[in-house]
Amino acid sequence: MKLLEERIRRDGEIKSGDILKVDRFLNHQMDPALFYAMAEEWKRLFDGCTINKILTIEASGIGIACVAGLVFGVPVVFAKKSKSRNVSDDVYTAEVPSFTHGGVNTVQVSREYLHAEDRILIIDDFLASGAALDGLISIVGQAGATVVGAGIAIEKAFQPGGRRIREKGVRVESLARLASMEPLEFI
Amino acid sequence: MKLLEERIRRDGEIKSGDILKVDRFLNHQMDPALFYAMAEEWKRLFDGCTINKILTIEASGIGIACVAGLVFGVPVVFAKKSKSRNVSDDVYTAEVPSFTHGGVNTVQVSREYLHAEDRILIIDDFLASGAALDGLISIVGQAGATVVGAGIAIEKAFQPGGRRIREKGVRVESLARLASMEPLEFI
Repeated sequence: MKLLEERIRRDGEIKSGDILKVDRFLNHQMDPALFYAMAEEWKRLFDGCTINKILTIEASGIGIACVAGLVFGVPVVFAKKSKSRNVSDDVYTAEVPSFTHGGVNTVQVSREYLHAEDRILIIDDFLASGAALDGLISIVGQAGATVVGAGIAIEKAFQPGGRRIREKGVRVESLARLASMEPLEFI
Repeated sequence: MKLLEERIRRDGEIKSGDILKVDRFLNHQMDPALFYAMAEEWKRLFDGCTINKILTIEASGIGIACVAGLVFGVPVVFAKKSKSRNVSDDVYTAEVPSFTHGGVNTVQVSREYLHAEDRILIIDDFLASGAALDGLISIVGQAGATVVGAGIAIEKAFQPGGRRIREKGVRVESLARLASMEPLEFI
């Protein structure tokens, strides 16, 4: 998606350790108009697929997923990263290693919000190792629901996650696919 | 706002300890169409006020704020709750006690995204003690920017935060104001 690629070129910053900082428009300051254009692109890509719910993971997936939910006309569920007093014990969980913070998060979704008949679009900001997506796919599987596909903003295609997850048969639609970081090149 | 009050009556759950659980539509599963209607109401309430940025706090404020940013046509910044490798050290910070998780979070916003000329609408899901709002107001103040007002989804008006913050001269527009939890009554 040209619009997102151009934005990454203009406002993204390459940091050491293969970190692409997109804080200016994606995951600290957010550009809702860009998110709307991204959501319309996923809507076009998944046209004809029955999707009745979007699943994402806190925190930086929430804004993108919520705007996508508006465009798809479906509710959005976000997996929570820590146990809150307000979340029922009756949850699906997955262990997700954190790239940005280090350590492992237990992410959880209440059983109340995922059911066997659900057809889920997973939305997230980044796909690199695929750890977060693995966790979300596992949670959908625990509910007996169907992963229709994953809509990713930025895929680090030089990392193995995207290929590995596509080989499992999951449709992954990444709007910007980085072939390399230095120099910044897209597939 | 009738639509939100009706939704709270229908889908909210009162838990012990003055907890109103709105996980079904606000802060675990989210209803983007409801968020859009809420954003339009804030747009009407703040009509004529110059607002060039929205500020919220992770995680459950992000979805509401992002849809509001779409309706207001402005970028959205969310205060982060933990120190990430990806955030510059050059940040504004505030200490915010957590109602749901206990303990105190250090929340931070990069200095890059708040400036003295900014006119900020703060958006959050709940207002009770006012601790989160205090933190966000402090961060806006550190940047020398202006708080135009705060748009809150649900105010527990029987707790002191809303009154205290209004008495400081901050305009607070809460879309549902709870007079009491048991029975559930709105102002």
